Amino acid sequence: MRVNGAHYRSIWLDDSTGLVHIIDQTRLPFEFEVVPLAALEAFTTAIHTMQVRGAPLIGATAAYGIAVSMREASSDTALVAACETLYATRPTAVNLRWAIEWMYQQLAALPEAARAARAFELAEALCTQDIATNQAIGAYGKGLIEAAAASKGAGEPVNILTHCNAGWLATVDWGTALAPIYKAHEAGIAVQVWVDETRPRNQGASLTAWELGQQGIAHHVIADNAGGHLMQTDQVDLCLVGSDRTTASGDVCNKIGTYLKALAAFDNHVPFCVALPSSTIDWRIGGAEASNEDQTEGEQPANPSSSHSEIPIESRDPREVTHLQGLDDRGQLRSVQLVPDGSPALNPAFDITPAKYVTTLITERGLCAANSKALRELFPASSTA
Amino acid sequence: MRVNGAHYRSIWLDDSTGLVHIIDQTRLPFEFEVVPLAALEAFTTAIHTMQVRGAPLIGATAAYGIAVSMREASSDTALVAACETLYATRPTAVNLRWAIEWMYQQLAALPEAARAARAFELAEALCTQDIATNQAIGAYGKGLIEAAAASKGAGEPVNILTHCNAGWLATVDWGTALAPIYKAHEAGIAVQVWVDETRPRNQGASLTAWELGQQGIAHHVIADNAGGHLMQTDQVDLCLVGSDRTTASGDVCNKIGTYLKALAAFDNHVPFCVALPSSTIDWRIGGAEASNEDQTEGEQPANPSSSHSEIPIESRDPREVTHLQGLDDRGQLRSVQLVPDGSPALNPAFDITPAKYVTTLITERGLCAANSKALRELFPASSTA
Repeated sequence: MRVNGAHYRSIWLDDSTGLVHIIDQTRLPFEFEVVPLAALEAFTTAIHTMQVRGAPLIGATAAYGIAVSMREASSDTALVAACETLYATRPTAVNLRWAIEWMYQQLAALPEAARAARAFELAEALCTQDIATNQAIGAYGKGLIEAAAASKGAGEPVNILTHCNAGWLATVDWGTALAPIYKAHEAGIAVQVWVDETRPRNQGASLTAWELGQQGIAHHVIADNAGGHLMQTDQVDLCLVGSDRTTASGDVCNKIGTYLKALAAFDNHVPFCVALPSSTIDWRIGGAEASNEDQTEGEQPANPSSSHSEIPIESRDPREVTHLQGLDDRGQLRSVQLVPDGSPALNPAFDITPAKYVTTLITERGLCAANSKALRELFPASSTA
Repeated sequence: MRVNGAHYRSIWLDDSTGLVHIIDQTRLPFEFEVVPLAALEAFTTAIHTMQVRGAPLIGATAAYGIAVSMREASSDTALVAACETLYATRPTAVNLRWAIEWMYQQLAALPEAARAARAFELAEALCTQDIATNQAIGAYGKGLIEAAAASKGAGEPVNILTHCNAGWLATVDWGTALAPIYKAHEAGIAVQVWVDETRPRNQGASLTAWELGQQGIAHHVIADNAGGHLMQTDQVDLCLVGSDRTTASGDVCNKIGTYLKALAAFDNHVPFCVALPSSTIDWRIGGAEASNEDQTEGEQPANPSSSHSEIPIESRDPREVTHLQGLDDRGQLRSVQLVPDGSPALNPAFDITPAKYVTTLITERGLCAANSKALRELFPASSTA
């Protein structure tokens, strides 16, 4: 996507220096800073401090992190250590595990001397694959926006609510939830995006608003509290969010607060659509349970408890709630305290939206309902692997 | 309630100077500043800029504003002008209208010369009445917390989620939603309060957390996004919120985001209780419609549209979303920008929770279900006036 008119990916290898570069997302939208990651430690720090974030980008960063570490040392011990260090950075997004396992399996089978070069090829292949996946998600999702546009008056935009950032910054390029919006905008469909600010880290206000502004797409930032009211008053045609982990039965683990918007969408008959590459599907969770259901009624179990017991919900630093960073009147990034001295905070980073509140999953293979039967039909090999 | 151990009300007349004093709530929790309001303009500014806020306190402030303006000029024209000026400050809370009409009716019937003195008596009577009302709400609501405590293990606190600030700062004293918590705490019942920060103005993080801390009550501030997850994982026993306007059929208009918490409570079988003085009930809305329903099935209409068309939802300055005030590392109150330059925002201040999602209304006359029959039985005179 474009930054000040120039094309960027969120992570790339500079062939001339051999350095991997990222955009420091903790400084956006106020400072656009490209950061080189020279050694494994820089990769783990980048993921842990959320200089890079978003399930697909975390996976890509981990892949490049393994490649860079193989350049230093490529023994079995070094490979395992790199994988384990990277795996410990964030617990919820399943792409991290997926990318690391994918890299490990292929590299472990090679002689040590061949690992570094191959690791860079694999990391770049993973990035290329991510872009292709997101373009496909965008193309399929665009159909939903087109359908919504058909029922609007001439010149009236399709109003789309999104939560957090599932844009190109959350992936290598294009994004997941925002890819359909970019594709629709390219096709000349008028869209207007309600951007949940997404406390506590404000990825909506700082990243999604910035992305949309850079591509010239109409949007308004709203408090996370506002979306229900907008849906009640017919100001939302479609909700489009991403996913950090999707169970085999279609439960969606995504940024904290997603569940509340899904409830409001359900209550107001607004389609709630989740865009995800299949690498975010955790086939180990929810498959058996929902499979039994399919054999009887084909309905989803109510609030399946398995997802809550099986998906670790990352609990982040309470300081993300008690303090917030913004631009002061002198143009300096500054952190301010929001709560009284002595008031503690709790900061769960994700929640789980039960499949029954999800209207449509948008994957690189097409649209499907959020249940295990539909997912199995779309991904027969993965679901039985 | 107590501030640094001393007792305060949120508004009071200093008999020695004849000045009305308020606490400037825009500077809390970091600065405790008492501000005298000398003339009508100061009262309208205080309400408009939210130095005072909360439906009951807005009403009390308007009453004192009329009294102060009567001291300057007490003609019929002056009385009408004062009432109209104050009425225009905030559109959603119905207590403002209620307090102004109550003052007007009694003052208009008096000779001009008698109005000022009587107006101060009426304003103080309204404050005394508010405190008594809130103590009654507290006593009735305490019963709900006691009942929840009975089902907890020994020493385990009752976990209560609240949104915005419906504490003593939102009233003259005691509060509405927080009154039951204060009463329970006084009675030795262990409580722990989840405080929604309540973007965009953060009344939870800045006011509710401060109030609870000053009274020594355990609490955690959470992002508004977190409450659904906490309910899904059995970490909330009870939701307790206030109301800015309640319809005759039990729909609750309250701070933006309340509706989302009500949906989550409903989905997870958590009681969703709304504490309100009867002065926040707008008997003109929802009565007839629900009355028809009562004659047939006794059920609430699904999402009655009348509330959305009849309650004006205040749209506030987008800057409340795009900028946020906090304490910087030098101890200075500072506003920081949260969104990219050029990203607009929308800022609706309230939403409407349909009665079907409200478990219990807590009023000064006791508990009742959120429907017109129950409300009419509790308030037979008001509902037919």
